[in-house]
Amino acid sequence: MSTPATESVAPAVAAQQARRVAESARTPDSRVTPNAWFDSWFAAHQRRSGFQVTRIPFSRLSNWGFDPDTGTLAHDSGRFFSVEGLRVEADEQIGVWEQPILVQREIGILGILAKEFDGVLHFLMQAKLEPGNTGAVRLSPTVQATRSNYTGVHRGRAIPYIERFVAPRTGRPLVDTLQSERSTWFLRKRNRHMVVEAAGDVPEHQDFCWLTLGQLRRLMMRDNTLSMEACSVLACLPGARSLDAGPARHSLGEVISALCEVKARHEVGQHRIPLKEVTSWRRLDDEISRADGKYFKVIAAEVHADSREILHWTQPLLAPAAGGVAALLTRRFGAVRHVLLHARVEAGARDVAEFGPTVQCTPGNYGDVPAHHRPRFLDQVLSAPPQRVLYDTVQSEEGARFHHAESRYRIVEVGDELDDVPPEFVWVTAGQAARLLRHSYYLNMQVRTLIAALHALG
Amino acid sequence: MSTPATESVAPAVAAQQARRVAESARTPDSRVTPNAWFDSWFAAHQRRSGFQVTRIPFSRLSNWGFDPDTGTLAHDSGRFFSVEGLRVEADEQIGVWEQPILVQREIGILGILAKEFDGVLHFLMQAKLEPGNTGAVRLSPTVQATRSNYTGVHRGRAIPYIERFVAPRTGRPLVDTLQSERSTWFLRKRNRHMVVEAAGDVPEHQDFCWLTLGQLRRLMMRDNTLSMEACSVLACLPGARSLDAGPARHSLGEVISALCEVKARHEVGQHRIPLKEVTSWRRLDDEISRADGKYFKVIAAEVHADSREILHWTQPLLAPAAGGVAALLTRRFGAVRHVLLHARVEAGARDVAEFGPTVQCTPGNYGDVPAHHRPRFLDQVLSAPPQRVLYDTVQSEEGARFHHAESRYRIVEVGDELDDVPPEFVWVTAGQAARLLRHSYYLNMQVRTLIAALHALG
Repeated sequence: MSTPATESVAPAVAAQQARRVAESARTPDSRVTPNAWFDSWFAAHQRRSGFQVTRIPFSRLSNWGFDPDTGTLAHDSGRFFSVEGLRVEADEQIGVWEQPILVQREIGILGILAKEFDGVLHFLMQAKLEPGNTGAVRLSPTVQATRSNYTGVHRGRAIPYIERFVAPRTGRPLVDTLQSERSTWFLRKRNRHMVVEAAGDVPEHQDFCWLTLGQLRRLMMRDNTLSMEACSVLACLPGARSLDAGPARHSLGEVISALCEVKARHEVGQHRIPLKEVTSWRRLDDEISRADGKYFKVIAAEVHADSREILHWTQPLLAPAAGGVAALLTRRFGAVRHVLLHARVEAGARDVAEFGPTVQCTPGNYGDVPAHHRPRFLDQVLSAPPQRVLYDTVQSEEGARFHHAESRYRIVEVGDELDDVPPEFVWVTAGQAARLLRHSYYLNMQVRTLIAALHALG
Repeated sequence: MSTPATESVAPAVAAQQARRVAESARTPDSRVTPNAWFDSWFAAHQRRSGFQVTRIPFSRLSNWGFDPDTGTLAHDSGRFFSVEGLRVEADEQIGVWEQPILVQREIGILGILAKEFDGVLHFLMQAKLEPGNTGAVRLSPTVQATRSNYTGVHRGRAIPYIERFVAPRTGRPLVDTLQSERSTWFLRKRNRHMVVEAAGDVPEHQDFCWLTLGQLRRLMMRDNTLSMEACSVLACLPGARSLDAGPARHSLGEVISALCEVKARHEVGQHRIPLKEVTSWRRLDDEISRADGKYFKVIAAEVHADSREILHWTQPLLAPAAGGVAALLTRRFGAVRHVLLHARVEAGARDVAEFGPTVQCTPGNYGDVPAHHRPRFLDQVLSAPPQRVLYDTVQSEEGARFHHAESRYRIVEVGDELDDVPPEFVWVTAGQAARLLRHSYYLNMQVRTLIAALHALG
């Protein structure tokens, strides 16, 4: 790492960055992209023809195929991702199971370009089409790409602004950290979350617009508007620490210790196994699924598009069971807002467990289990009276890999009645969540999305 | 996590803990275990009969055997560790190779009990025998154990003080974090680093003594006295941040970003493969090794002991090639001491790379390569004039797994001539290193050992 004098950064600069982010958050509209103009621009993108997605049998996939020995479903190039088998072995509480899992070695980039206009930071967002989305367009990071995408394996068009995020680059990173992605479906996958403040002029592009953090937070209140990827990156911006008006319930060391305890207790082992040997799952002509329909299916799709990097392709998609729920319970201790995190063991986690929301599940998977085995706090979240529901939107999982994967995201206020909580749950402040987000693998994708929403509530 | 009011910890408590650690560091002798008494006690332990270790053929191992299909060397119980094959695939710079690797799913505990005497924190250290040590005894953490050890798979004696570290426990953790262990030899292994302040009386034990941090730092200056495990845990104690007397060369965000860049660049894949198929390695009757003798051997040993949990056993050991070197270059920018970290890709790393010392290698492995392929800064470390060598000791790797694995640990002062450094190297302050050590997988075992020594230099 070269060390020219201009790169020398005192803590004062970090504080200044936090102030600039806070200033952008306090700016609810902008001359650069006025809210009224944005709404019609985004509506126009929504009306565009978008994708036609058709389910096909696996035999009609081009350049994708099953390995005859293992059953692995992979691309001929060896890039993108593959569908393999995973056996998870843990203690009695967590149990032992097998499942298909997506494997992707490359680190994806989720990058947002930032720039000051009129003295206020704006963020360059993309109206992005993905085949798996319900309703075609999401407001997404400036760049969302893997090396396979931007080095030409995809044989598609160039990815706008990618050079701002790949070394050697210009500009200064405000955020640069690895964060996990959906570890119930992906094996040890992570994405590089970046916010880079642009050096020099940034050319315009019809599918992109500059918005303040205040404008973005307004859009977080709408169903299926900001992508989860966008929320996840925005959650990592510095500045949220100032939310804490008093002492936290636990020190940060205690919070980290609680996660450490969960990792040590369950002794989880992950073993890749041949996909064709995964117990309880079967491969049909057009899907890999369970007879009881639980959890998810792997399907094959043919996609026709008119505005993506290439115009026609086939690919596997993961289609989760319908009706996912991700929810944070929140309350104040003294004057300080806390949220209740759950240290969750997930099949594909890089290190056993991360903190997730208070509730993260697909209720349909629990239809046939006794009431006391239902996820903790699920009923409290679903039956909360309206005046206690601070946030309630529908979000879809990333549409390049997941098919019609909608979940309900909620933040629910509780009162003094919830004080002692079960093991593996812990109260943290918004400021502590922000400090954890400077590092990798503390907070999972779902809770990052909800933390972004929590900031939006102010 | 239950939240009784007494557990509510304000930041002031963290600052107070740091002050108490600093106070212990400033206490060079103690009424509880005077230095003179310690020296004769430790010498007496050194003179004890210790272990007789004999190399044996693999066929004479009891309860250990090779899997006929894969060649995996494992214990019949499935516990402890196994020796398996690993294939590492990365970009051109890092390359592709195969090697044997130790696999251990359990998280080991490295735990030190702390207690105040005469108002000063003391740490309970164990004079611990291990079969692989050169010279038998090391001053080790209070507890060094895996679940296999303390749940009886070992069929040995009880482990003193283990109940202070396993939940539900009494006492307050000063340190509780997962840290990696020697990722060139272990696949994704990590240990739980704990310092727990004891609640109530602590019974005495003849193999244990209480020492202040000041006393421990004095002992760090001696060859083969404190174990690397002890140094690694002590490096995680709060309080080191106060070492920084001015601004850092880079912000902590930039330091984390530099590591992130290395992880993204090399696209490292780890694939477990059958041990019998590992290229360039062969299994003889009594060792698994390379024809050129590089890197390490896996051997089998018979151990007779008179003071360990059980009295006689056989086990595999990893015997590294002789003459390892781990060294930190250090210089001041303004008034502030910095050390030069190297973002190292290691075969078994949990997430591609961690920061290691400036130099970490076995020079003998580079005897036949061109000079410009030798590790950066190695010659500078080996040929440093004596007045620039601030720290120079011999340390052995952990003796329960490693056989006669000695390395030279050095801290070498450099001047203004070293300013710009190559990519993948970065200057950090001692305070920044301490902040990184609150989290997992930033600093590897070797650099943690050297950071503990850096604190000892004052």
